[in-house]
Amino acid sequence: MEDPAPTDAPRTGPTVGELGESAVLARILPRLHPGDAAILGAGDDAAVVAAADGRFVVTTDLMVHGPDFRLAWSTPFELGWKAAATNLTDVAAMGARPTALVVAIAAPPTTEVSVLEGIADGFREGLAALAPGAGVVGGDLSASPVLMIAVTAFGDLDGRAPVLRSGARVGDVVAHAGARGAAAQGLALLFAEATDASGEPDRLATRGVRERHPQLVRAQLAPEPPVSAGVVAALAGATSMLDVSDGLARDARRIAEASGVGLDFDGAALGPDPRLALAGAEDHGLLATFPRGSAVPAPFEVIGRVIEAAPGELRVDGRDVGSDGWDPYSGWDGRAG
Amino acid sequence: MEDPAPTDAPRTGPTVGELGESAVLARILPRLHPGDAAILGAGDDAAVVAAADGRFVVTTDLMVHGPDFRLAWSTPFELGWKAAATNLTDVAAMGARPTALVVAIAAPPTTEVSVLEGIADGFREGLAALAPGAGVVGGDLSASPVLMIAVTAFGDLDGRAPVLRSGARVGDVVAHAGARGAAAQGLALLFAEATDASGEPDRLATRGVRERHPQLVRAQLAPEPPVSAGVVAALAGATSMLDVSDGLARDARRIAEASGVGLDFDGAALGPDPRLALAGAEDHGLLATFPRGSAVPAPFEVIGRVIEAAPGELRVDGRDVGSDGWDPYSGWDGRAG
Repeated sequence: MEDPAPTDAPRTGPTVGELGESAVLARILPRLHPGDAAILGAGDDAAVVAAADGRFVVTTDLMVHGPDFRLAWSTPFELGWKAAATNLTDVAAMGARPTALVVAIAAPPTTEVSVLEGIADGFREGLAALAPGAGVVGGDLSASPVLMIAVTAFGDLDGRAPVLRSGARVGDVVAHAGARGAAAQGLALLFAEATDASGEPDRLATRGVRERHPQLVRAQLAPEPPVSAGVVAALAGATSMLDVSDGLARDARRIAEASGVGLDFDGAALGPDPRLALAGAEDHGLLATFPRGSAVPAPFEVIGRVIEAAPGELRVDGRDVGSDGWDPYSGWDGRAG
Repeated sequence: MEDPAPTDAPRTGPTVGELGESAVLARILPRLHPGDAAILGAGDDAAVVAAADGRFVVTTDLMVHGPDFRLAWSTPFELGWKAAATNLTDVAAMGARPTALVVAIAAPPTTEVSVLEGIADGFREGLAALAPGAGVVGGDLSASPVLMIAVTAFGDLDGRAPVLRSGARVGDVVAHAGARGAAAQGLALLFAEATDASGEPDRLATRGVRERHPQLVRAQLAPEPPVSAGVVAALAGATSMLDVSDGLARDARRIAEASGVGLDFDGAALGPDPRLALAGAEDHGLLATFPRGSAVPAPFEVIGRVIEAAPGELRVDGRDVGSDGWDPYSGWDGRAG
């Protein structure tokens, strides 16, 4: 991806307040592609999107400056990329092929237009890399005291049944595609080494962390989840699937509870730090179950099996484990900066 | 609608921060109906919505506390109602039948859960009144320094072509359904009479304005746009249509520009205060054009005709008028309260 490094360059252009809504949209829209499913893109009261299947998959997510991202850490490009990536993964987790997004952005009037242009570039490149053919069919631009990005993503099931959380059966194998713990390591590094004396995210210190740990920082700020693996899993007969956003343990428990089963992980398959793999949030991998004896398709790796146990029970190598994860309220200290 | 009056009652229940995401969702979701188009509602990574037409109409909008609403003026119920109403109207303006919404809400951890319950009630009742059969199929809940509501709405064209802004032809009649100026009058009253000495919205003073001007305040805070008229217009052969959110003049100019025509309003048809009718924003009526000689269906009223003129030119009784409207940046003073 073309990812300009964060800079401390002086202001380079007008603000959204100076330019006004119409002029800002005129600078953003040419940076986006409506995608193959767009019958009517941005510019009218609503867009029209193809849904040849006769159904569509839809998910929505809101990212807010402060709790969900910091401009001192993320480039605008990375924000757009991550907003696309996380929503595409939710579509993929249903076994669907992502087709389109709509994006609503609210920004303080003092925001430089170049920030919104960077976000748009991140959406475009994230879509091109993770879900070729999908595009941005519409959006909204509002004023706000803080920057926020609301994304709604769509997918097509191409005639298949959606893959739910509730379909895991005793004896199924448990498999995972994507990173396990890297995004959490990146976030821990940013908190430890890219903050100032008062604990606030610091733009200059972020540069050093990026140089020392490029992959872990990238895993947090611009993840590359295995979006195309969602359809692969569905075609291979996955019995259940979800996007691992809140940590493997917490999300695995959701499958186990919804399916009325337990899950037993193979500790060795979880990597050198099973606790990190289980607790680390925001990797946006795909966790799925497949019938026993079926060929588990790449990039999925077998990491356990479905067992008869109290609904929601998780074990590692047969030993019960506690849950771990992330709550948007308990996890945030209320500071907006 | 069941609309509890705003109160200054002391705190009555827990905050979202105290309860946590899962428990808050468990209190909100039972208040919402997924609607007739929901194949799979909330609870998985994404929802699945019927789109029998093989296409779906989609629009998205973000409302932020401060620029877009004030809790000192609006009840939570009214916020949910208005968020539903404005998005449903955008779907209707394409000539589509609204089918479903997804709703993402970000709230400060100190927000009382009862506020979110009230918003959910407003969505439910607004949908039931304005688009029976449509429901809320999914959503997201996040933390934020300010309350905000992001809505994405869907509709089905039932085999018809979408009604665009660009289809007005010279000789067509111009017609409008819905209020003209009432929402702007309500907002002006709130600014004039429901603010404190420093100009900030005041909860107690709002009560008095509601008692003196119930209809105008309601038109601003909980509008009842003619959602079902969108399909009516499409079936009657409307050549163009849009949702009048930024004022009749500004939105009419959009049709005129997109269609490469001018519009000439009949001043007498605009009501006792043509300037208010032309400039007043947020009524969320539907502006449409119909072929000359066709029967213009109720609740549309003929207010002018399409003329050969410079693209975008607006006239009243043959005289050129300036544009007027609302820009989210120029119209906001930056205060969040």
